[in-house]
Amino acid sequence: MSDIELVSATKSFGGWLKRYKHRSTVLNCDMIFAIYLPPAAEEHPVPLLWWLSGLTCTDENFMQKAGAQRTAAELGLAIVCPDTSPRGSDLPGEHDSYDFGSGAGFYVNATQAPWNQHYRMYDYVTSELPALVSAHFPLNGKQAISGHSMGGHGALICALKNPGRYTSVSAFAPICNPGQCPWGEKALGGYLGDNRELWHEWDSCELIKAQGSDLPLLVDQGDADNFYVDGQLRPEALAAACEEASVPCTLRLQPGYDHSYFFIASFIDEHLRYHAEKLQ
Amino acid sequence: MSDIELVSATKSFGGWLKRYKHRSTVLNCDMIFAIYLPPAAEEHPVPLLWWLSGLTCTDENFMQKAGAQRTAAELGLAIVCPDTSPRGSDLPGEHDSYDFGSGAGFYVNATQAPWNQHYRMYDYVTSELPALVSAHFPLNGKQAISGHSMGGHGALICALKNPGRYTSVSAFAPICNPGQCPWGEKALGGYLGDNRELWHEWDSCELIKAQGSDLPLLVDQGDADNFYVDGQLRPEALAAACEEASVPCTLRLQPGYDHSYFFIASFIDEHLRYHAEKLQ
Repeated sequence: MSDIELVSATKSFGGWLKRYKHRSTVLNCDMIFAIYLPPAAEEHPVPLLWWLSGLTCTDENFMQKAGAQRTAAELGLAIVCPDTSPRGSDLPGEHDSYDFGSGAGFYVNATQAPWNQHYRMYDYVTSELPALVSAHFPLNGKQAISGHSMGGHGALICALKNPGRYTSVSAFAPICNPGQCPWGEKALGGYLGDNRELWHEWDSCELIKAQGSDLPLLVDQGDADNFYVDGQLRPEALAAACEEASVPCTLRLQPGYDHSYFFIASFIDEHLRYHAEKLQ
Repeated sequence: MSDIELVSATKSFGGWLKRYKHRSTVLNCDMIFAIYLPPAAEEHPVPLLWWLSGLTCTDENFMQKAGAQRTAAELGLAIVCPDTSPRGSDLPGEHDSYDFGSGAGFYVNATQAPWNQHYRMYDYVTSELPALVSAHFPLNGKQAISGHSMGGHGALICALKNPGRYTSVSAFAPICNPGQCPWGEKALGGYLGDNRELWHEWDSCELIKAQGSDLPLLVDQGDADNFYVDGQLRPEALAAACEEASVPCTLRLQPGYDHSYFFIASFIDEHLRYHAEKLQ
């Protein structure tokens, strides 16, 4: 019996979008992930882009709304979308908020009960799922990572905490400084406890201050994004940390764009081409 | 007070996706429609593509999932997506089926009570809404039409019943012969009554047999589409009617593709370029 079970397979731009169910040991639950395999994957192993999604999302949102398959097919790039939190459990309050618990794993390893029974999304997206997909799909081992909002935060911390692992990292409207915004304070406080020192290893600004980065950062942010205006995202704090640590950071404020997938779709091609060039 | 009320405005590929609410006299209810205005619309009037969606859809599905804005922006093409049925009423059984009543207007003018109080989607998409959008947006009067499934049927009958109105017509997996498939028999019987002769003016195959067409037809159909396999779509009947009537029909069976928006997204650029060329 295979350790992954096909949920659906849909032809898309000559390649295949497939969804699989599997038992996650790390998360202690069943999970679904999505993979887009470009036409080139039928000929030879291909590089992989990880996409981490934002609050309330599943593996499906990006694949349905970002319009990424067209250019991924052209570039011969596979894309994996993990889900955004453990599923199927029913911890106290787990389903009460859009910004904590189900759909809001924040890509950290929780230390606080009861969350530490399941909420270890960092280990899931950096260890368990990479091993699983490399065992099952024609991937050539080269990886890049990107994401949106909570998933942009996830992409940044995964890259910063694993030097040499990813050839490139980018993010759309990431939560750059979770230790200093309401979303992050709620999530990190809940999953990691009240000692804010312990939050630093999950905050891209703090990671850059502590260790710098050899990897340049590419960040797009819409200036009409209400979460940006409300101080949830703080890209200026990231740019300042990069400046201080001499980390190359391209922060593009995109005039008129909001926080939606229409913003992502408008610029995803540029990110895909950026990653594809580094993945060569 | 304006006769349309802005619901949302989202920047997309340099242009704007806007949703508006308005009172429909024809449908006797409030309706929402979506319009994508490409960047060129800020400089001069632009041509318009009508997109008619399928069963269960609203004005939102195509705009979120088809990935059409990128090429529409490049080509300077506006797109209007009407909703697929009247909304806000509560007729007996109206919300019980996915393939009849709400979300399933079938782009006909109902003659049977109680449906004839509201279900006049043909007049809505060919008269009332065109007058409204031409009054409010920078459109140059040139129009094309396309759609998916029930909306592919809608696009075909709108074009066939209005020679000279549209410069071009295309469809994805259209219900080509509603008088001869379960979906169509249920819908046409319910909205128009049991006299099948009266269904002919709403069936693209019958319209072509009766009157031919100067307009060539472009139809894409996935060969792994379960509704095609089940006989709901019948593109071969359309091709045969066109052959008999010497109407140019390009029917492309796309191997491996299903009925989803991933299929539409895979080929929408070709349809947009096809329409843009005719709209020049």
